[in-house]
Amino acid sequence: MEAAEEQVSASGALEVTERTRLRRMRHKGSHRRDDLEAVLDAGFLCHLGVTVDGTPMVVPTVYGRDGERLYLHGSVVSRSLVRAPGAAVCVTVTHVDGLVLARSVFEHGVNYRCAMVYGVPRTVTDPDEKLRGLRALTEQCTPGQWEYARQPSRKELAATALVALDLDEASVKIAGGPPDDGGSPDAELGLWAGVVPVVTTLGAPVADPVLPAGIEPPAHVVKRTGRVLSGGPAV
Amino acid sequence: MEAAEEQVSASGALEVTERTRLRRMRHKGSHRRDDLEAVLDAGFLCHLGVTVDGTPMVVPTVYGRDGERLYLHGSVVSRSLVRAPGAAVCVTVTHVDGLVLARSVFEHGVNYRCAMVYGVPRTVTDPDEKLRGLRALTEQCTPGQWEYARQPSRKELAATALVALDLDEASVKIAGGPPDDGGSPDAELGLWAGVVPVVTTLGAPVADPVLPAGIEPPAHVVKRTGRVLSGGPAV
Repeated sequence: MEAAEEQVSASGALEVTERTRLRRMRHKGSHRRDDLEAVLDAGFLCHLGVTVDGTPMVVPTVYGRDGERLYLHGSVVSRSLVRAPGAAVCVTVTHVDGLVLARSVFEHGVNYRCAMVYGVPRTVTDPDEKLRGLRALTEQCTPGQWEYARQPSRKELAATALVALDLDEASVKIAGGPPDDGGSPDAELGLWAGVVPVVTTLGAPVADPVLPAGIEPPAHVVKRTGRVLSGGPAV
Repeated sequence: MEAAEEQVSASGALEVTERTRLRRMRHKGSHRRDDLEAVLDAGFLCHLGVTVDGTPMVVPTVYGRDGERLYLHGSVVSRSLVRAPGAAVCVTVTHVDGLVLARSVFEHGVNYRCAMVYGVPRTVTDPDEKLRGLRALTEQCTPGQWEYARQPSRKELAATALVALDLDEASVKIAGGPPDDGGSPDAELGLWAGVVPVVTTLGAPVADPVLPAGIEPPAHVVKRTGRVLSGGPAV
């Protein structure tokens, strides 16, 4: 997957042929804000990289985007912030869309969309901003849920570790489309090649077993059943 | 999600009631090899954390497990290895299984399985080990594909950056089950609570548009259509 970076910069001054056009489309790099927001808004889970005592640590956690800022839930960041205030983090959001099966093993790959955000996070202490951040986070996972569920008490707010990270430095990488070796000598091998979609979907809500009969899932939850979060035919 | 660690260690000497039993079951930590292998074997994508020039960097990449070792594809690791030989990395594999919708925002969460592997990776240079590693990687993504596709040439092998990471130091965290607040005063609010499954499935293979008619996808690919990689009712 990491070939993307090289592919993007390897434009050169060659004539764009049908094959190179497709090749360049398979891997795309972007620093556009709309591409960044599209990748962030399609998900709710990130992998947060922090350095703790000199060692990198990658922790999955939920995030919410609020304009040009991310809010992240997590005691791990807070702990690393306490140990090393001002230390940079990397937040990576990845959507896997498909497995690329080429004629040759060498050209195999993954179709994906990925955003990497760099910066120095800030611990959120102001209760109003904490509410705002938790709202962004809750709504990122399930839009409509913030107004439906019981919102945090002061005590719960105090017990919640939340950090903010401005979307100042970020990059997006996108790989899509069919394998690259359709025009190579390997095409003569007569092997099948294409993409196996990796599709992530929201299922029908499953009630807590202790929920009393007669309490139905709310409309904002039910309407998301079957929603495709990532994946699907990309060729 | 990071509450897991605290939940696991917060056992204490209290009597185990139905509620605390459920609570302790929602978050489980493990250092068992079979739990680790189960999480690793259920996926093919990891988030690799490296420290590059003092800054953490989290990169998605594919991996393959070969016994008690992971092989990872990637020029980013190789670059960081060149800059800082002997530097530790963290490889995190996460499967999201569901969104946990509780009565209170505070108890919302994610059902997931996560493995974190720490270690100092080794650049694979021996061509035979490179073949072995690439095989593990290819088979992790699509079992059967290594024998079907054209295997790497010497030149391709030389152009492939591959690293090995022993599974010596790792931990597993698993969160599953319904929300925790079914027995709390919030249950009186009469709100719906439960889990929205986040289901990742392999779709039907989509042929490369330039593939000649009559070349059908091989059986080892077709039989994986509809395969559930993660998610599903967890309550």
